[in-house]
Amino acid sequence: MGLSLCSLNSATIKHASFSDLIALAVHHGFGGVGLWRDSYAATGAASAARLLAKAGLRVTSVCRGGAFPQPSAEARAAVREDNLRALDEAHALGADCLVLVCGPAIGRDLEGARRQIEDGIADLIPRAASAGVPLAVEPMHPMMAADRSAVTSLAEANDLLDRLDSEWVSLCLDSYHLWWDAALPAEVARAAGRVSSVQLADWILPIEGQLSSRGMPGEGTIDLAGFVELVAGAGYPGLVEVEVLSDRWWSVPPADAARAAADGLHALSLHRGAPSAGPSAHAWLSALAKESS
Amino acid sequence: MGLSLCSLNSATIKHASFSDLIALAVHHGFGGVGLWRDSYAATGAASAARLLAKAGLRVTSVCRGGAFPQPSAEARAAVREDNLRALDEAHALGADCLVLVCGPAIGRDLEGARRQIEDGIADLIPRAASAGVPLAVEPMHPMMAADRSAVTSLAEANDLLDRLDSEWVSLCLDSYHLWWDAALPAEVARAAGRVSSVQLADWILPIEGQLSSRGMPGEGTIDLAGFVELVAGAGYPGLVEVEVLSDRWWSVPPADAARAAADGLHALSLHRGAPSAGPSAHAWLSALAKESS
Repeated sequence: MGLSLCSLNSATIKHASFSDLIALAVHHGFGGVGLWRDSYAATGAASAARLLAKAGLRVTSVCRGGAFPQPSAEARAAVREDNLRALDEAHALGADCLVLVCGPAIGRDLEGARRQIEDGIADLIPRAASAGVPLAVEPMHPMMAADRSAVTSLAEANDLLDRLDSEWVSLCLDSYHLWWDAALPAEVARAAGRVSSVQLADWILPIEGQLSSRGMPGEGTIDLAGFVELVAGAGYPGLVEVEVLSDRWWSVPPADAARAAADGLHALSLHRGAPSAGPSAHAWLSALAKESS
Repeated sequence: MGLSLCSLNSATIKHASFSDLIALAVHHGFGGVGLWRDSYAATGAASAARLLAKAGLRVTSVCRGGAFPQPSAEARAAVREDNLRALDEAHALGADCLVLVCGPAIGRDLEGARRQIEDGIADLIPRAASAGVPLAVEPMHPMMAADRSAVTSLAEANDLLDRLDSEWVSLCLDSYHLWWDAALPAEVARAAGRVSSVQLADWILPIEGQLSSRGMPGEGTIDLAGFVELVAGAGYPGLVEVEVLSDRWWSVPPADAARAAADGLHALSLHRGAPSAGPSAHAWLSALAKESS
């Protein structure tokens, strides 16, 4: 019994210590962890990498770089330095990618923000290549356009990747950010071969703060099994992270939240009928169902 | 001095009586009003129409029909009856359109919801034609996908109109719902000739409830002048409504909220430099600027 095709994101249990994060991931049979930078800050990336290797855990993502739109050259330079540090850390951790939360507009200039984002990513590509760490653009929910990211749909992110045209720029697909979009099947198909991170959280109401109002898989209105099937059908070969930013779940002991996340993932795979997608999705879901039984 | 190219939506001052709504619209020189059905329920549509004609106010929209996805045939029939009543009322009021808030999914079936929405609109077309009232599909903000509408982008709404292919199905473009979208210029251009309602509200943080957390024009992060320029540039010939659903503004006297709305609209036009869009947008903004001076 386990979840070796899944990864536990540190933000799901953000009040856990780094050693507790590892212990909980191992206990539930997760194959990896996704790491927000605060999770290993006290441990240090190099020590964290050793602890994770010993525990047999892969690092599916480091979160985050980004914040490209800035009001001055000085601010842009400072952000660039921080993004380079994040790439160094992701390299030290052997992470599958560095997730980019691209940043909101300065004032009302969304177009300008999008230009600064494109320029900022282009500027990081050589370092991503030398670090061997793909940059993963995360299109975020449109309700975060004013405070998190001007990249608000998968179509926009795919267009951005078309223009940047680099094997070191990829995508992070998070169900919470993308589920509402009628273009999702077409845009996920278009994203095939470009996805370096898949994250799951459920949509629940009411929204209490744009950032941390998410639900564990199964708590909300998103067809998460369908979402996983879609990305698996597009050939995504990696682990699927559970990343649930939730004031509610942050208020319970981390062990309880980790258990809820694991239970939600198990239920997700077991509740499926015969997958309707291609052989890749079938294999992925079958393997997960087998592990969960 | 006036706002004859603008319309005051009743929801902006939802605690005002119908006669106060008329008085405030006239006082600030609005050319029309947008009416939520509760605003004239006590007066009755026929009497309301007489009062509005006497005051020289056009009815730019009636809100709302819709709610197409329903769990049973009985529920669908009840909603259909209500939608037909709404069309009758919009006809009696001589409204420019009936706004459709299309409804969320039942459970997790977004695709099914979208099919029910398309079928439900198609079913109303003959009655809209005989009433002479265009149905106006309002694509809503993706954060409302689980509780208001499965139609979450202008691209999706344009696709829906392509399929329905009827002169009696049009669009309601609300800045609050659409501002985040990188595809907005392209999709507004695609919507040319299809728009029967344009509504303005600003985006402010924090979100406190998905429905009623909006700002008056100028309070938030949306480039509203650019939005008006965009729709005017696509040839929209009608009045622009100010529709601000806001717990904050609902807690002040309606006269104060109406004044804030009028002030926001005046500032919007006066703060523009030379419009960069086509002659249509230029004429619209110049006229508004002249009126506001």
